[in-house]
Amino acid sequence: MQGLMQDWPLTVDRILDHARDWHGGQEIVTRSIEGPIVRTTYAELHDRAKRLSGALKALGVQTGDRVATLAWNTARHMEAWYAIMGIGAVCHTLNPRLHPDQLCFIIGDAQDTVLFTDLTFLPVLRGYRDRMTSVKHVVVMTDEAGMAGVDLPGALCFETLVREGDPDVTWGDFPENTAAGLCYTSGTTGDPKGVLYSHRSNFLLTFITMARDAMGVSATDVVLPVVPMFHANAWGVAFSGPATGAKMVLPGARLDGASIYELLEAEGVTFSAAVPTVWQMLLGHLRETGARLSTLKRVVIGGAAVPEALLRAFEDEYGVQVTHAWGMTETSPLGTLARPTSATLRLDDAVQKQLALKQGRPPLGVDLKLVDDEGRRLPHDGETFGRLMIRGPAVSSAYFKGAGGAILDEEGFFDTGDVATIDPYGFMQITDRAKDVIKSGGEWISSIAIENLAAGHPKAALAAVIGVAHPKWDERPVLLVKLRPGESATKEEFLDFLAGKIAKWWTPDDVLFVDDIPLGATGKVDKKRLRADLADYVLPGVA
Amino acid sequence: MQGLMQDWPLTVDRILDHARDWHGGQEIVTRSIEGPIVRTTYAELHDRAKRLSGALKALGVQTGDRVATLAWNTARHMEAWYAIMGIGAVCHTLNPRLHPDQLCFIIGDAQDTVLFTDLTFLPVLRGYRDRMTSVKHVVVMTDEAGMAGVDLPGALCFETLVREGDPDVTWGDFPENTAAGLCYTSGTTGDPKGVLYSHRSNFLLTFITMARDAMGVSATDVVLPVVPMFHANAWGVAFSGPATGAKMVLPGARLDGASIYELLEAEGVTFSAAVPTVWQMLLGHLRETGARLSTLKRVVIGGAAVPEALLRAFEDEYGVQVTHAWGMTETSPLGTLARPTSATLRLDDAVQKQLALKQGRPPLGVDLKLVDDEGRRLPHDGETFGRLMIRGPAVSSAYFKGAGGAILDEEGFFDTGDVATIDPYGFMQITDRAKDVIKSGGEWISSIAIENLAAGHPKAALAAVIGVAHPKWDERPVLLVKLRPGESATKEEFLDFLAGKIAKWWTPDDVLFVDDIPLGATGKVDKKRLRADLADYVLPGVA
Repeated sequence: MQGLMQDWPLTVDRILDHARDWHGGQEIVTRSIEGPIVRTTYAELHDRAKRLSGALKALGVQTGDRVATLAWNTARHMEAWYAIMGIGAVCHTLNPRLHPDQLCFIIGDAQDTVLFTDLTFLPVLRGYRDRMTSVKHVVVMTDEAGMAGVDLPGALCFETLVREGDPDVTWGDFPENTAAGLCYTSGTTGDPKGVLYSHRSNFLLTFITMARDAMGVSATDVVLPVVPMFHANAWGVAFSGPATGAKMVLPGARLDGASIYELLEAEGVTFSAAVPTVWQMLLGHLRETGARLSTLKRVVIGGAAVPEALLRAFEDEYGVQVTHAWGMTETSPLGTLARPTSATLRLDDAVQKQLALKQGRPPLGVDLKLVDDEGRRLPHDGETFGRLMIRGPAVSSAYFKGAGGAILDEEGFFDTGDVATIDPYGFMQITDRAKDVIKSGGEWISSIAIENLAAGHPKAALAAVIGVAHPKWDERPVLLVKLRPGESATKEEFLDFLAGKIAKWWTPDDVLFVDDIPLGATGKVDKKRLRADLADYVLPGVA
Repeated sequence: MQGLMQDWPLTVDRILDHARDWHGGQEIVTRSIEGPIVRTTYAELHDRAKRLSGALKALGVQTGDRVATLAWNTARHMEAWYAIMGIGAVCHTLNPRLHPDQLCFIIGDAQDTVLFTDLTFLPVLRGYRDRMTSVKHVVVMTDEAGMAGVDLPGALCFETLVREGDPDVTWGDFPENTAAGLCYTSGTTGDPKGVLYSHRSNFLLTFITMARDAMGVSATDVVLPVVPMFHANAWGVAFSGPATGAKMVLPGARLDGASIYELLEAEGVTFSAAVPTVWQMLLGHLRETGARLSTLKRVVIGGAAVPEALLRAFEDEYGVQVTHAWGMTETSPLGTLARPTSATLRLDDAVQKQLALKQGRPPLGVDLKLVDDEGRRLPHDGETFGRLMIRGPAVSSAYFKGAGGAILDEEGFFDTGDVATIDPYGFMQITDRAKDVIKSGGEWISSIAIENLAAGHPKAALAAVIGVAHPKWDERPVLLVKLRPGESATKEEFLDFLAGKIAKWWTPDDVLFVDDIPLGATGKVDKKRLRADLADYVLPGVA
């Protein structure tokens, strides 16, 4: 028997319709790429996005076509998002931090037909435009005056398209599983792979983030998403802002501490979301200038583990509630948030702080499990660690064009590639990348846990732990240490330092002192290269 | 092009799975029908609900079958909900306040095959069991000891079913549009009509209510739903509680001020939801005893307009945030909530208080419009009033078995039967029932607005306004007044009292002093009967 409720497809155009209808006068403030602060409203943004949809249709964009954006967080970028998605085209957000070669690969893989770009990226486009063969039109996100300096043949002006576009375009009116967005994973191994969001997944993500225990954005909030719209849906804020009618403050290209601080104070921001480095820069600015945060109440930090000092500084010195969150491009991205429960509120304050540093617990709409190499479920005891698997309506079922093949297990879970623990309070903590975890005698050893401890040795500048083949135990850990300038040390000094802090069988079989430890593009230890470097190394005592 | 996100149907069994997996130890506290306070957890409730599903299957219940509940808010009632819905049967909640004749009609219309009942309702069942011919099994929600006093042939014991039921039952695994719940509207005219909720609509309702600006329940909340599970999904609380992992406190059959107060304080309740009369009773208790509310922070009031004195008492005297909400059985029921926006926060405090008394603004997932008799949209100026129309994924598309025929307009909106205004801040206010509004010269006059004013006259005990046929103006208002004992008054006294408070053309054409004004079952003026009583009445000046 079917229920008798209305057919109301979850398409994201309805989110902006809602903002126009119920919060039409609410402001969206942008630090424009050209420089000045510019102000618009949800009603204006809706109207302009409709006109842009009309212009895209006039340029030949059809349902299912991919339209790329290479842009910072601005109202124009939001207009482009809704203009593209509203007509059933696919908004493909490009990460400007990628190497142009990778951008060209991704654009070609996606077969983007139109590319929106900020002025910032014209130098890249001038150099690589010829290799973007699928792209028929480049739209520069500026006005006619801004076009004067644009030296790119055939480039179109965003404001001209908006002004001349036909607003009489139908939005939505297609099934909610229609593709809405495309975002490529950074791809540490192999080519980047595309994650293809649907209207349904984006809409459900919006609901999930709106819950009080998630982002909990309110119509009385002023929201500043530092987290970029070019990556993983800006954690949903470009949807939850209009969905709730919050005022939005978009920082454009300037993400340094002083610029963010200026916007926070000038616009009365109450809620923000960003990666730890942004908060670190803001904290640096606050300490340097002695400035205070007079309106900011809550921040969500994700994208990398939150350092304890950062959390304590914001909570204790500045009175800002910090929520650590975790997710991936493949999870839209919301996975977990370290929000308290009534059980954790009864714990000692110190224990609560430790829980707040974990990646946290899943909201409704996210299922997690830990499994061993054979896919068997592991206990949530806070100690056993296993592969972290995730399932939900806003989690990938496959990559674009089937890249990477089947990616779900028989229960429909996606393998995050992370190794984690889950404690009895439901708080998940990532302990390692699956490819870096050391498998010794059928048990797993966290390379990250050991190297974090070793890095705390006063003589260590940097530390890394990798697994090396062992005939009996399969793998055993080896610690690599880069000493501080002028220091010298012995293997025993480091093993003694670790003793008592880790299980005995976790103790590295060797300590190697090296001149340097290679780092990847994101500043993390490049363990793939370390393993290659040590390909011929033999453990002590192994023939 | 289809998105590549997981197929994760929105079925409500996943809500209780989530509670078991992530909040398994959280408490559900019930004031049992037998008397004592009983405690369970989400993990236990999940296990018991599964066993009950097994028992229902053993009784022959199949997907699509209707299973009725005649019960108060208890953990057992929640177990029955999830047991029924989990296997794709339809949970038909019966309102025990209905006359047994109506109950028999509704049970027959729904063709319920199993009926769960609390001990409270055994007298009704003994008298009417024979007329419930579709019902094959009556399950009494008590244990074996409680069954001793049950004088109902063939009655089954809830606890026996739970103990003996096979827990190895599959939940979900059907499309999300599958019917989940059935609830009949009270039906002021004609027979009651069934509203058939789907798993999808209940799940989306849950998300809608979880938003910070809606109910905003958190895992750190202690939630006491006074609003009954037998009516309109208990405003979603039986879903949002487990969805967030909140502690739940279920009041059973005792809803008087003293009993509710005792639970609020003993269990540390932070959030509650109820109709105004319940809050009035609680307020009476507080004032009588001088007691304070030490943990309660937020309440949602709906089901009838909130009197200003009630709102002010809770907010100003007891420091409890009051949110006025509106909805209908046909809207699952969440329609609007009078929550502030950043625009309304800038208004004078007095204006904000007035806005808080309106029915409020729709969250994402609810579309509203005002239309005139020809279906044309009317402005949101706070003055123009029109028929209130509503649309959304948790709003009815038709009644059970097609009763009442087509109920949506060409844009897919459902007619609420109410007349309302919507102000420029997006706050909707119901001004009248559509059938009671007075249509005079093509314009509408609110009968409620006039009678509320007239009731404020010191000599009035009760007032009512109805429209009476007029040859030129179609209808004109007539005021009926029941005077306080011993009082006498003239027509002019009342018209003078209204002068200046309403538009001149709203002034009643006549004032009739009557001995009594008939009230309906819910305590509202029975205008249908008044109109019938005045069928032969002729307005002054009309031939």
